[in-house]
Amino acid sequence: MNSPTLAVHTEDALARFMRIRRQTLALTNGLAPEDLQVQSMPDASPSKWHLAHTTWFFEQFVLGNDPSYRSPNPAWYYLFNSYYESVGPMHARPQRGLLSRPTVDEIRDYRARIDEAVGELISHGIDDELASRIELGLHHEQQHQELLLTDLKHAFWCNPLRPAYRDVVMGASASPSTPMRFVAGREGAVDIGYQGKHFAYDNETPRHRTWLSPHTIANRPVTNSEYLAFVRDGGYREAGLWLSDGWATVQREGWQRPLYWQDDLSSEFTLMGIRELEPNALVCHLSYFEADAFARWAGARLPTEAEWEDAAAGLNATGNFLESHRFHPVAASHGDGLQQMYGDVWEWTASPYVSYPGFKTLPGALGEYNGKFMNGQWVLRGGSCATPNDHIRVSYRNFFPPHARWQFAGIRLGHDR
Amino acid sequence: MNSPTLAVHTEDALARFMRIRRQTLALTNGLAPEDLQVQSMPDASPSKWHLAHTTWFFEQFVLGNDPSYRSPNPAWYYLFNSYYESVGPMHARPQRGLLSRPTVDEIRDYRARIDEAVGELISHGIDDELASRIELGLHHEQQHQELLLTDLKHAFWCNPLRPAYRDVVMGASASPSTPMRFVAGREGAVDIGYQGKHFAYDNETPRHRTWLSPHTIANRPVTNSEYLAFVRDGGYREAGLWLSDGWATVQREGWQRPLYWQDDLSSEFTLMGIRELEPNALVCHLSYFEADAFARWAGARLPTEAEWEDAAAGLNATGNFLESHRFHPVAASHGDGLQQMYGDVWEWTASPYVSYPGFKTLPGALGEYNGKFMNGQWVLRGGSCATPNDHIRVSYRNFFPPHARWQFAGIRLGHDR
Amino acid sequence: MNSPTLAVHTEDALARFMRIRRQTLALTNGLAPEDLQVQSMPDASPSKWHLAHTTWFFEQFVLGNDPSYRSPNPAWYYLFNSYYESVGPMHARPQRGLLSRPTVDEIRDYRARIDEAVGELISHGIDDELASRIELGLHHEQQHQELLLTDLKHAFWCNPLRPAYRDVVMGASASPSTPMRFVAGREGAVDIGYQGKHFAYDNETPRHRTWLSPHTIANRPVTNSEYLAFVRDGGYREAGLWLSDGWATVQREGWQRPLYWQDDLSSEFTLMGIRELEPNALVCHLSYFEADAFARWAGARLPTEAEWEDAAAGLNATGNFLESHRFHPVAASHGDGLQQMYGDVWEWTASPYVSYPGFKTLPGALGEYNGKFMNGQWVLRGGSCATPNDHIRVSYRNFFPPHARWQFAGIRLGHDR
Amino acid sequence: MNSPTLAVHTEDALARFMRIRRQTLALTNGLAPEDLQVQSMPDASPSKWHLAHTTWFFEQFVLGNDPSYRSPNPAWYYLFNSYYESVGPMHARPQRGLLSRPTVDEIRDYRARIDEAVGELISHGIDDELASRIELGLHHEQQHQELLLTDLKHAFWCNPLRPAYRDVVMGASASPSTPMRFVAGREGAVDIGYQGKHFAYDNETPRHRTWLSPHTIANRPVTNSEYLAFVRDGGYREAGLWLSDGWATVQREGWQRPLYWQDDLSSEFTLMGIRELEPNALVCHLSYFEADAFARWAGARLPTEAEWEDAAAGLNATGNFLESHRFHPVAASHGDGLQQMYGDVWEWTASPYVSYPGFKTLPGALGEYNGKFMNGQWVLRGGSCATPNDHIRVSYRNFFPPHARWQFAGIRLGHDR
Repeated sequence: MNSPTLAVHTEDALARFMRIRRQTLALTNGLAPEDLQVQSMPDASPSKWHLAHTTWFFEQFVLGNDPSYRSPNPAWYYLFNSYYESVGPMHARPQRGLLSRPTVDEIRDYRARIDEAVGELISHGIDDELASRIELGLHHEQQHQELLLTDLKHAFWCNPLRPAYRDVVMGASASPSTPMRFVAGREGAVDIGYQGKHFAYDNETPRHRTWLSPHTIANRPVTNSEYLAFVRDGGYREAGLWLSDGWATVQREGWQRPLYWQDDLSSEFTLMGIRELEPNALVCHLSYFEADAFARWAGARLPTEAEWEDAAAGLNATGNFLESHRFHPVAASHGDGLQQMYGDVWEWTASPYVSYPGFKTLPGALGEYNGKFMNGQWVLRGGSCATPNDHIRVSYRNFFPPHARWQFAGIRLGHDR
Repeated sequence: MNSPTLAVHTEDALARFMRIRRQTLALTNGLAPEDLQVQSMPDASPSKWHLAHTTWFFEQFVLGNDPSYRSPNPAWYYLFNSYYESVGPMHARPQRGLLSRPTVDEIRDYRARIDEAVGELISHGIDDELASRIELGLHHEQQHQELLLTDLKHAFWCNPLRPAYRDVVMGASASPSTPMRFVAGREGAVDIGYQGKHFAYDNETPRHRTWLSPHTIANRPVTNSEYLAFVRDGGYREAGLWLSDGWATVQREGWQRPLYWQDDLSSEFTLMGIRELEPNALVCHLSYFEADAFARWAGARLPTEAEWEDAAAGLNATGNFLESHRFHPVAASHGDGLQQMYGDVWEWTASPYVSYPGFKTLPGALGEYNGKFMNGQWVLRGGSCATPNDHIRVSYRNFFPPHARWQFAGIRLGHDR
Repeated sequence: MNSPTLAVHTEDALARFMRIRRQTLALTNGLAPEDLQVQSMPDASPSKWHLAHTTWFFEQFVLGNDPSYRSPNPAWYYLFNSYYESVGPMHARPQRGLLSRPTVDEIRDYRARIDEAVGELISHGIDDELASRIELGLHHEQQHQELLLTDLKHAFWCNPLRPAYRDVVMGASASPSTPMRFVAGREGAVDIGYQGKHFAYDNETPRHRTWLSPHTIANRPVTNSEYLAFVRDGGYREAGLWLSDGWATVQREGWQRPLYWQDDLSSEFTLMGIRELEPNALVCHLSYFEADAFARWAGARLPTEAEWEDAAAGLNATGNFLESHRFHPVAASHGDGLQQMYGDVWEWTASPYVSYPGFKTLPGALGEYNGKFMNGQWVLRGGSCATPNDHIRVSYRNFFPPHARWQFAGIRLGHDR
Repeated sequence: MNSPTLAVHTEDALARFMRIRRQTLALTNGLAPEDLQVQSMPDASPSKWHLAHTTWFFEQFVLGNDPSYRSPNPAWYYLFNSYYESVGPMHARPQRGLLSRPTVDEIRDYRARIDEAVGELISHGIDDELASRIELGLHHEQQHQELLLTDLKHAFWCNPLRPAYRDVVMGASASPSTPMRFVAGREGAVDIGYQGKHFAYDNETPRHRTWLSPHTIANRPVTNSEYLAFVRDGGYREAGLWLSDGWATVQREGWQRPLYWQDDLSSEFTLMGIRELEPNALVCHLSYFEADAFARWAGARLPTEAEWEDAAAGLNATGNFLESHRFHPVAASHGDGLQQMYGDVWEWTASPYVSYPGFKTLPGALGEYNGKFMNGQWVLRGGSCATPNDHIRVSYRNFFPPHARWQFAGIRLGHDR
């Protein structure tokens, strides 16, 4: 979550605000209050907390921008702040699941009240500063939509009953997937990063020049059947394929397959419960360590983020996003050119998450942490089946630590040329 | 939880069964499903789990006693077993709070179904074996009534909003409490332990002879104001007052006062929310380490369990129990003789929890763990404000590890003579 | 380590002092400075530290008894204090192995200097107070002689080269061992504990009356072949045989056999290196958890310490002690009556380590910790092959936590009658 | 440790081998065997282990290159392998300090024997393969010379006696240090990485093109007095200055100043014992987190490794290296241009340690780990006062995790322009 550079939308501002806020709430339809309460690991948060925290963001940074604003629940500021140290102390992250109060009903009320107040503000007309804060809040909200789903999936997976979140049945892919081919990328000085008049996070800026060495990039991501070959070939038992930290993790955690695969290697846990493993579907829920080891096993490497961005530069950001309501990657698609650069699975890159040359941290709480996570994480690109469609763009930089597996993250290969 | 030696009640068996089962459910009145979901530490369980586990006990050991019985939810056996290794594998204790399914509503249905089935069984007449299993199940249920309250109290205390479970206002004690006096106990060979025709846990048997050395026992437990003097005297900073393990715990955990006291030393968290500290009320939520250190500071010691039982032998088991709905210890009462031996606070004794001479483990799952907790724990006597009145008796042996503080546990002093 | 009640010896005081001090040093003959430096776990100490700490004891409590005494190395007080909180702060126990300075040579010098000073003191005549402090220091020294050996054994075992400390070859026992028989003990009121004019630790006092229930005690401890039957019968895989904490330890630590047995179940690591497992020799290096589980498997139980002491009351304290220089238990011996009550292996009892009725802590630093370890430990009786012969007596109470395995601890069985 | 690309030296091969091997041994002059035994943390190794492991390297990869070679101590292979998984299993790193055997004397013998055998090999003439393995072994040896010193420093620091390794007295700097100035670097496409005929690690290759954005670089590293201003300004208490992981580390570890500074902020622990803090000397023993936070506080940033390498390209690799026997950074020197790019302190860069474009892992055990540490670490440049002079070069890439503080690591600042 970072600060906007600018925000312009053709959609009516109020309609857009209400649409995105409602979309979050709709994700919790059909869930019991208990489902929204559970926190299955320190890295995850209860769904309820996501509902409250995204609302707190608007209360703190939009309503609270007016110094005369008085919150009816100032104690909630402490509970629902996440990592804005400059805004005040915060509740310990691993203990979010202990907060039975406020209840889900109280948090839905909270959302309604804040939505009404922000909606009224928008209706009366807002200046650029407030518009940009609302825009930032909406992008922040969309990030939490994805996290709400991946956190919930993890919580359900921890339950031996393996409950299903939705009952969508994905159509099986009758035909085999497109063969993997490697496409030559550009070489030499190229520009990457965001420059323009719409919204982008500050970590996407400034647009700057970088140098691409000779390389290729795969026309599509890796499928389940391809990853299965790695598993069956003993990939998880061959130290030489892994980074040192990765091998230590494999040993310590007993990893033998992707996070949600069953040990029969022919079914997996999905948001639709246990399903048969679709051979042609894109493999997901891999850590960076696994993506990197697979690439080494395949005699390839991961693309850098600059290679990815330059390759994706001309493509439309369409694909299997949250709005498809599939909640799972689909099979590799047919066609020429680069397939599924967007949607389905986040693609791990070979690039550590660091700042771009000339990067500037914005002043104040909104910009507080710009860059503060720039240590020990790797960049992912392209969005997933849990990402809202209008949240993604070619310059978008997602990042996670190398052991993280609970996101819809997969692999696209590349080569030195 | 142990096996019964016998069970006879004047109350109609069905009425008794229904009364106790309903009492558990009534404890959750007014709570939100989210409240029942929370597990605040590995030693505690969600209220929901207590509701389900006590029901599982009847399904497993009463209904399941009939080999033709088929559970509609066999998967729940895994979830709601606690530590009966011989009955099968069980869900990891620290992860009980992750189970959003079955929901609270489903568990209430489960209770209703099992209650109906067991009720029908009772109505049709049951043999001694089944009667004794039901009796055991009811005592088991009562133990979990107390734990449900103490676990919930801990969960609410973890919430910075410090919610109140109930709104009972305890009357302040205008008059000072009875001065502490030390009463001489009997000396020589005495018999302790249960012998009779009613229910008792096996750890209370067999009744056996032991030897009491010359000693006295205090006429009443220690009050908040007396314990406050210890705190103010630097008791928590004086290594020489503590057991070695206790001092290590004080340092590691940063203990400076009883678990739920606020740092102003004049208020405390209760099941009625934050309340003023009542000087004459019995101090509670102490560990064995604190009870022992306080006794050393006071130039006294804790009584042994044999001293306690012999002293309590002629007294009526009346006092401030669960049924008073006070949910907190009251002030030290007036009167001659031993006061408040029963109710208010469990009293830590100087006796490690070990088996009585001649103790026998019963065969089968019901008896599996008899004695399996006999390591590293200390005996407590007399019941608390969260104990059901008809659950306690003079020979009742409760036990907890020396660092446990979340029970209503306090101090009665004694002396060598 | 506790305070003496009295000390009278026929041996000349100076000769006795020098003999015991030299015995400690002699234990390190043939070892390299590096061997004396190693600390293999927090519970163990480097041999070097034992040499220094026992010397510190004399400097602190004997020489330092004279207020005009000035230590040439006051900084060493901090390094070589162990757990005398009232004497001052101390170096963290788990970090003792990090102290390369003072070197072994410097510590030998230190010993020589202090021995000379104490010897001179003794030569010039000492009062009762000083005599009793020296006596305490010598018993303290003897405790550390045993620990030096068991700590060193553990350190050597951590080395994949499995070095031998000594080359003694134990004679194999050609003949089978005496069959195990159970001998009836006394019943009713008996007196145990130390009373007399010689040295005893305060935890052995006061002599007091206790009550023995009907019971028997085995004529000899358990042998390797008997314990092997337990291992082969799946004892380490049967939850029902274990205390709950014991089972958790077995699972967590992966215990499958006694600490120093090799996985072939026919050889073991000893202070003489890897040796064939002698079937008739007494099994050793067991935790309380294992002793207790074995007893349950055998349909027996461990004796209480009162049963042990009453049974041993008339026997001579002779056996396989440190002075035999065997450094390992021998085979079960023949003969009528109770065999090997003393020496070979410490015998775990069913008694938690608590104070005797009327126990009094002595004032001052020497008495500081009397009783401060009385939590979570179990009493062992009789001494081992690493105990100096004149250190043991019938009332001697050793104690260790239930998971400790690095001592020469074994099993004698008993029964309720 | 990586594979050589080539190795040519004017020095006679045998003389060079003997010189470097002797240099290692000379570092242990004056140390007691106990000093060489200690391992103060899992990241460090005993000096003794460094002596043995570097010798093992020659035995394994040079002598062992001859298939007929038989080691006299094959068990030592297990003990002294470090992280060459493909060569076989290895002794757990955190337990290196537990190995009292082989003793220091035995390891010195081992060194002598292997040196003789390798020397003989060299004398008889060796092919390119063996020459390159020896060259690699010598660079490996030099890396361990530096680690031997930094590990020993840490071990001595853990000893409250704070022993001195050497007695060198560093001359105080009478004159103030050169003011810090920022020098413009080149902009645009530049080439970095090693290309040539001498030795370099594979992570320095291939030489490749990269793009430098507009920037400056400081003329000298940061001094103690400059860093002290940051400490005094509350730098360690201001969350906003730190990376998120860095702030968590500061809180968890209680960092308040550089690793070896005393809390008086005017003295520090050095290899010469406790010394007064020299204001003009370069600050050292900083983590990446501290270097990064200091830079943010100073309104600057760290240089990238490409910026550093391009700036250093024309300079001579001279400075305060191991051979100066100062064992500590000196004061900032006077003069125009970039000062102290080499020696004194390793300089943290803003570059995560990743492979260069076109990087290739070499086949076999020697190349096994090439790149396997490329996760979560940051590049340091320029060598330190503990680095052998002929070990460093402009393309040399050192790397450590961001929390590591026990190396002689400091700060050079830079700016975007």
